[in-house]
Amino acid sequence: MRTLKITLAYDGTRFVGWQRQSEGESIQALLEDALARFEGAPVTAHGAGRTDAGVHALGQVASVRVSFTHEPATLTRALNAHLPADVRVVAVADVDDTFHARFSASGKVYRYQIRNTPGADPFDRAYVWHLPEPLSFDAMARAATLFVGTHDFSAFRSVGSDNSSAVRTVTRSEWRRRDGLLLYEIAGDGFLRHMVRAIVGTLVEIGRGWRNPDEIPTLLNGGERSRAGATAPPHGLFLVSVDYD
Amino acid sequence: MRTLKITLAYDGTRFVGWQRQSEGESIQALLEDALARFEGAPVTAHGAGRTDAGVHALGQVASVRVSFTHEPATLTRALNAHLPADVRVVAVADVDDTFHARFSASGKVYRYQIRNTPGADPFDRAYVWHLPEPLSFDAMARAATLFVGTHDFSAFRSVGSDNSSAVRTVTRSEWRRRDGLLLYEIAGDGFLRHMVRAIVGTLVEIGRGWRNPDEIPTLLNGGERSRAGATAPPHGLFLVSVDYD
Repeated sequence: MRTLKITLAYDGTRFVGWQRQSEGESIQALLEDALARFEGAPVTAHGAGRTDAGVHALGQVASVRVSFTHEPATLTRALNAHLPADVRVVAVADVDDTFHARFSASGKVYRYQIRNTPGADPFDRAYVWHLPEPLSFDAMARAATLFVGTHDFSAFRSVGSDNSSAVRTVTRSEWRRRDGLLLYEIAGDGFLRHMVRAIVGTLVEIGRGWRNPDEIPTLLNGGERSRAGATAPPHGLFLVSVDYD
Repeated sequence: MRTLKITLAYDGTRFVGWQRQSEGESIQALLEDALARFEGAPVTAHGAGRTDAGVHALGQVASVRVSFTHEPATLTRALNAHLPADVRVVAVADVDDTFHARFSASGKVYRYQIRNTPGADPFDRAYVWHLPEPLSFDAMARAATLFVGTHDFSAFRSVGSDNSSAVRTVTRSEWRRRDGLLLYEIAGDGFLRHMVRAIVGTLVEIGRGWRNPDEIPTLLNGGERSRAGATAPPHGLFLVSVDYD
């Protein structure tokens, strides 16, 4: 048996998310089914990040244990020939048998895209949250920096999450502006379910003037989910990359 | 009655093209139906370029004669509220009654996008022609310049076109490279049906080394369609803008 690290990009628009579900199409199921053709037996793919329905990926990582012997470059082409056009294998690499896409990850980078122009753009409508009203970029940029550090992100996780620790370390949290888009990037050692979308939803409420950046430190001391902002829609979110030491 | 100039952007993926057809959805029909709601009577929209099925537009222009009195800014918002997300009105302006989107146009700009990387990108698959094999950019760039000038483009129009003059003047014809994309832009006083796609298909055959740039002048002297290259697929093509003097 060998262990493979598979890097994927996908347009999450029509999927139920990374994870295999009883109903609807998932990226995990597509990848596992493509791999099973080569293995001649079922294959389990572990994903680094369980992206939700509608969330996109530029650099999702999956690990699999297989016994077939195709070269990585050949396998990349062969998998892409079996996958639909909205899911692409970017790279395949042989890795140490101790590698696990999720448990070996030391960090992740997510991006959230907002289109902040009066009119929508027909070409990026599946990849941005369109907010036509004016937003204070300065307030959002200032508030974003307050997420950097080690905090209890209980106020920024999905309601009904289990009781595991919500302490995470964020190493970067910043906004950029480009051509009418507001681009948020956040890097950290791990992310709770809906964490990036809850942070973005809160930052947007600050940009709208509904909230003050000074509320962030209070929310970051294990505050309640209901005190933070609404969860931003999934289709503006991209899993950019997964880091391994 | 007043005459309006309506500028539109659209993702042509799911449409039968600009022009109303007996089957399938067209941009013209969507716009006319949205305008008819305000007019309370049927409205005819004349488009500057009859984009084919799958072809996109950043700046298509339509002209209409209507009697309702909404302000241009109000009408822009109202039309967008009635149009689907893949068709957007970018601007509405009152113009002279002699204005006709097609007959008043003095020129047009088209862009064609090729992704020339080994792997496809799941996010631009509806907007590029993906060609994974190496292409000679230099040969394509040199050949492109040979289209500039006034020529008989009979070799670069759709088979079965009528017998009207195929003489057109091209003022710009050039390739740029950016992030794995090859971007072709062509500007001219008018374009025959399939002309840009036939030119791109021929330039790609030059990039592949199947043809020599020196063939272009011969083709441009009223050559036969069968002597030029294949027609490039529609989904890489964008109507960028329409010029009026």
